[in-house]
Amino acid sequence: MTLNRQRVIDDLKALRTMTGNAHGAQRLAWSEPWLAGRAWLRERAAEVPGVTCEQDEAGNLWFSLPGRSRKSVLIGGHMDSVPNGGWLDGCLNVLAGLEVLRRLAAQGRPALTVKLVDWADEEGARFGPSCFGSGSLSGAMKPAQRAELRDSGGERLRDVLARCGVDVDRAPRARKRLRDALAYLELHIEQGPVLEGLGLPMGVVTGTFGVERHSVTFTGQAAHSGSTPMKVRRDALIGASRFQLAVRDIAIQHGGVGTVGRVDAQPGIVTAVAGEATCLLDQRHLSARKLTAMNRAARTVSARIAREEGLGVVWRTLWQTPPMPFDPELIRLGDAAVKSVCATSMRLPSGPLHDATEMARAGLPTVMLFVQSLRGISHAPIEDTDEAHLRLSVAALDELVTRVMAKLG
Amino acid sequence: MTLNRQRVIDDLKALRTMTGNAHGAQRLAWSEPWLAGRAWLRERAAEVPGVTCEQDEAGNLWFSLPGRSRKSVLIGGHMDSVPNGGWLDGCLNVLAGLEVLRRLAAQGRPALTVKLVDWADEEGARFGPSCFGSGSLSGAMKPAQRAELRDSGGERLRDVLARCGVDVDRAPRARKRLRDALAYLELHIEQGPVLEGLGLPMGVVTGTFGVERHSVTFTGQAAHSGSTPMKVRRDALIGASRFQLAVRDIAIQHGGVGTVGRVDAQPGIVTAVAGEATCLLDQRHLSARKLTAMNRAARTVSARIAREEGLGVVWRTLWQTPPMPFDPELIRLGDAAVKSVCATSMRLPSGPLHDATEMARAGLPTVMLFVQSLRGISHAPIEDTDEAHLRLSVAALDELVTRVMAKLG
Repeated sequence: MTLNRQRVIDDLKALRTMTGNAHGAQRLAWSEPWLAGRAWLRERAAEVPGVTCEQDEAGNLWFSLPGRSRKSVLIGGHMDSVPNGGWLDGCLNVLAGLEVLRRLAAQGRPALTVKLVDWADEEGARFGPSCFGSGSLSGAMKPAQRAELRDSGGERLRDVLARCGVDVDRAPRARKRLRDALAYLELHIEQGPVLEGLGLPMGVVTGTFGVERHSVTFTGQAAHSGSTPMKVRRDALIGASRFQLAVRDIAIQHGGVGTVGRVDAQPGIVTAVAGEATCLLDQRHLSARKLTAMNRAARTVSARIAREEGLGVVWRTLWQTPPMPFDPELIRLGDAAVKSVCATSMRLPSGPLHDATEMARAGLPTVMLFVQSLRGISHAPIEDTDEAHLRLSVAALDELVTRVMAKLG
Repeated sequence: MTLNRQRVIDDLKALRTMTGNAHGAQRLAWSEPWLAGRAWLRERAAEVPGVTCEQDEAGNLWFSLPGRSRKSVLIGGHMDSVPNGGWLDGCLNVLAGLEVLRRLAAQGRPALTVKLVDWADEEGARFGPSCFGSGSLSGAMKPAQRAELRDSGGERLRDVLARCGVDVDRAPRARKRLRDALAYLELHIEQGPVLEGLGLPMGVVTGTFGVERHSVTFTGQAAHSGSTPMKVRRDALIGASRFQLAVRDIAIQHGGVGTVGRVDAQPGIVTAVAGEATCLLDQRHLSARKLTAMNRAARTVSARIAREEGLGVVWRTLWQTPPMPFDPELIRLGDAAVKSVCATSMRLPSGPLHDATEMARAGLPTVMLFVQSLRGISHAPIEDTDEAHLRLSVAALDELVTRVMAKLG
């Protein structure tokens, strides 16, 4: 039996019908639709001869095809979606991985054991923190510290997970499953516009960006917009505007990305000079050194703007995570696999984080393949990818597994 | 009897006790505390020999001290306040005017009739539109068009005013009261920082600014802040930030004021480049020609920014009013009156609108005196003015009335 690329697309559509509605995918982690999707996945996997399934202490599902060696290659993805999500994010990875297992199983016992992991709660859409399952293995997630988080309906994380067979206090024990692992491979939609802009179906991911996320508050003096001459104003929103433009310049200079996605002014009315303005800042880079330099530059410029405008400025850190570069040898193999299927490949960093980030953090040699997203849109029902590109991506993942097995087996 | 400057302060404090609370003045127009304040004012005025009181069709109270001529000089103010307002805005004008009537009445029949007007609903804090009473006389307010407005409690303007003896359809008839008027004089707190910044107790107002108030919406493309390279972004909030800085430059160039007091970004989250950003814009100038030039320059620059950033831009007019310059001869007399009391005077425009704006619009020679506001703050319980300055302001208004009577009588 050879690889059946179309079957992956058929599986994705079946899953969409079963667990989505007119507003998109509804497989919020730990919900009924998510559990239904997982149960269906187990049924599909059970049809593959030799494949067994186990749930680990962190709620991840492990589908194993035993090889001649216990040493294993991992393929990962996640069945959970955001509310009103797309039909590809997370589950393309899983169902393409399942097709690779089918192809391997049909060809007899492989040299290495191959495991498909369906990570639990990658999106973090219900309780906030992302990558519950993979982060419990890498150590980035401290499940016990999150146990008292409540969802919008007031339910505790601890109780919700217990109903799904997960004891948060025991979740980190799942880490032992990485002991025999040699490599981690993940296919994902790009969720950005780069490949589409270049007209390329696929690329290989060099790593995931480190992130500096902060709120930056400028304080001046609220004043009447009619009675306050320009030269005596201390306009906090002017500070925020200058800061946003500086953030862009800094990102361009350092080859990263920098975004102010929201500015809140107080009192925030048409007849008042703003006395306070808070920016939400997000800076990302693949180089830890350059990310640090970007953040330092933003802090310096915020202080200079504050001084020049007669304002105060206060930074509050919302979240930080270091860059997670992927494995150079696996990147090379990924590049080769993409080229063998699509003729042309490219290397690009990932802005969004993924379960692959956690595997790289855990010290496992890791790589991802990206397939083009139409319009760069994800986390929305119109998320889409050309079906010809989806078929190519299944073939490229299969090719990557073959090349990795040849290298490590 | 001579002018009793301290009595005005005592009256203001009595009014505050009667119609305010720990959160400030509560004389919202057409409310019980406002009616109580007005009833008290009528009692105070009734103690002045010869002074009569009438309510006109627009709800304004006219306190008249007959002179040897029917020709009249008007002194104006307003007893209504914003919710949680200050102790001076509007009522300083009225109570200082009442003290001038007392002084005049004690000295026998004046050459000209002097009328103190307590304008109805200057603030517009309950139904929205400002200067109901004075605007009904100038024609800027079309009361019948506002009759169906509802307050936050759902009550109709028409019904609320009817309970206060005002038939909105008949309100414009009050205009006939301007027939014998020769001049309109108003004392007001500055509500801005200019006089305090210069260390001057008082100034004379050259007119009220014209206002251009608009919402300006930039539209780009919402995108993931991690996966979208800087060079392909169409960031609407960048457009808004550049626009705000340009608005400031334009105001400085033209000698006016220009403010963006709020920016709303969509989706407005830390992980997304903004696809839409709406600025609230307020531009003011004393010269109609320069105000037009300021607004035209802002429109031009918004189009240029949109072009350079790959954005769309749409303007929506919220409100416009032309500048209202005051009477040159009355400005000269006001300057002289302030100098005679405070030694130094200055001429300054008013950013906020006032009932005086409506009298100037009605064609009546008009001038205002400003007394210093501490910290430039108004419409808040901490609104305040040094009591020594309040006493000077009563004397300056009295001096201005004397000089105007001498000139016109």
